Amino acid sequence: MGDGATIGVDWGTSRFRAYLIGRDGSVLDRRESERGILAVAPGEFPGVLAAAVGDWRRIHPTAPIVACGMVGSRQGWREVPYVACPAGFAEIARRTVAVECPPLGTVRLVPGLACRDDAGIPDVMRGEETQIVGAIDALGSGSHLLVLPGTHSKWATVRDQTIVSFATFMTGELFAVLRDHSILGRLMSRDGFDEAAFARGAAAVAGGGSLLHLLFSARTLGLFDELPAEALESYLSGLLIATEVKDALAATSERPLSVGLVAGAALAPLYARALDRHGVAARDIGEDAAARGLSAIARHLEGSA
Amino acid sequence: MGDGATIGVDWGTSRFRAYLIGRDGSVLDRRESERGILAVAPGEFPGVLAAAVGDWRRIHPTAPIVACGMVGSRQGWREVPYVACPAGFAEIARRTVAVECPPLGTVRLVPGLACRDDAGIPDVMRGEETQIVGAIDALGSGSHLLVLPGTHSKWATVRDQTIVSFATFMTGELFAVLRDHSILGRLMSRDGFDEAAFARGAAAVAGGGSLLHLLFSARTLGLFDELPAEALESYLSGLLIATEVKDALAATSERPLSVGLVAGAALAPLYARALDRHGVAARDIGEDAAARGLSAIARHLEGSA
Repeated sequence: MGDGATIGVDWGTSRFRAYLIGRDGSVLDRRESERGILAVAPGEFPGVLAAAVGDWRRIHPTAPIVACGMVGSRQGWREVPYVACPAGFAEIARRTVAVECPPLGTVRLVPGLACRDDAGIPDVMRGEETQIVGAIDALGSGSHLLVLPGTHSKWATVRDQTIVSFATFMTGELFAVLRDHSILGRLMSRDGFDEAAFARGAAAVAGGGSLLHLLFSARTLGLFDELPAEALESYLSGLLIATEVKDALAATSERPLSVGLVAGAALAPLYARALDRHGVAARDIGEDAAARGLSAIARHLEGSA
Repeated sequence: MGDGATIGVDWGTSRFRAYLIGRDGSVLDRRESERGILAVAPGEFPGVLAAAVGDWRRIHPTAPIVACGMVGSRQGWREVPYVACPAGFAEIARRTVAVECPPLGTVRLVPGLACRDDAGIPDVMRGEETQIVGAIDALGSGSHLLVLPGTHSKWATVRDQTIVSFATFMTGELFAVLRDHSILGRLMSRDGFDEAAFARGAAAVAGGGSLLHLLFSARTLGLFDELPAEALESYLSGLLIATEVKDALAATSERPLSVGLVAGAALAPLYARALDRHGVAARDIGEDAAARGLSAIARHLEGSA
């Protein structure tokens, strides 16, 4: 059954992150590189993984190896079918798919999740399910709303170790394309975060009105010299993140609300501020939720072995 | 006072359009080129205009020449200050700025409009005010909501020859950046308009939910083979146009609503469909509203001369 350690891999589109995780869930060592799945040719996955974590394997010869993220997509090592929500954590573990990695042994790929909203429109995640498992490992059972901000932010409702449903918001990608490719970017200079401008964007959203209209104010406030060029990016960020938070909270009937936030150091305070506007105090789970989730899935697997 | 003809120019960022307009407002002749203001160097404006409409001038030596659009911006021939709303048509005419074009005589540049919403956020238009003047020339006095779809759609409330207020929606630009630069474009093939897919996008908006979330369905419906690649662009168009129409109608308290639509042949039927979902029958003013508005502004100028 091993020594309680887990070798966990969060293998996304553009990043490779590996964790050596101890029996108590703490991260003992970590590796990170640019070898996301887009930078790995078909057939190269075992070699890349062995090069990255081979030394851990020698010290922990029986530690389970679990990998989540786009490595389980059609463009990855092996396509792992989505599991439909509601999906229990044990089911997610059971639906992992084993691939052989000759120098290391068996690697289990975690499935992504799919769900449908009331109108029957599908939604998907791959990688975030593992962060959610890790976050719940930290928050305990009960009902929680989990927020995972990013290019495609995920909002998931979890009850007693079951992911009931979730929804994706394209906030991060919309921010990037508007800044880099629309007229809004022309007046912007990129000079870091401006807290007052972010708050002004969030306040504009709280005042109501259509996002399609509000976005244009990121141009006119610049044209009228009412926001300096270096503040416009933060203002746009405030518009978009506040819209996401407002709309996502409006869509949940869960009360009282326990909200967990799984974000890096850049986004966590922005989402915490936007949630605070609605009187919601989010618990910050931090970025290592994936490591914790990989370790929890390994324990589920060992428990059912 | 001339023979009643007007030489009107709609001189935008990327297009130059000139109209010879008769006493009754009909377009007698037209010229169009790629010499938008971005393709005209400072100092070249008189020469470009004279080359385009010099022959009309010889036949109509005293016809007023009026130009609207970005030609009156800082990057154009001469910057014409915005007129603040509410702005009457006579005031717009009075606030035109004369520039000299030696081979032709005086050219009057039409000012753009500015307004502020209840939260004090500014909005601007340049060129659309002239289309609105032309549309009202067609619709008659009274209260009207005018829709001018495009890269930056404008919705304007007009009462008795006064533009009371307006709002910009970034619908067209958002559509373009999402199709050309986001993950949504990756599954799309561009095969013309798919009416059923447009309607499905509009129906998704009618069902409620956040636009930031709904946009992602333009990916997942493709991923799940529930919309073919060639339908995804029309679906995205339905999502965005229906959101604009829904939000803009929600923001107006004007009832009963007389809605005029100033759009080209590509967008007019899409907006008419989206408006029809809300029980609003829009009158289609057609694309020559700018010519009609330029002629009306010339008449205002002559009347006050």
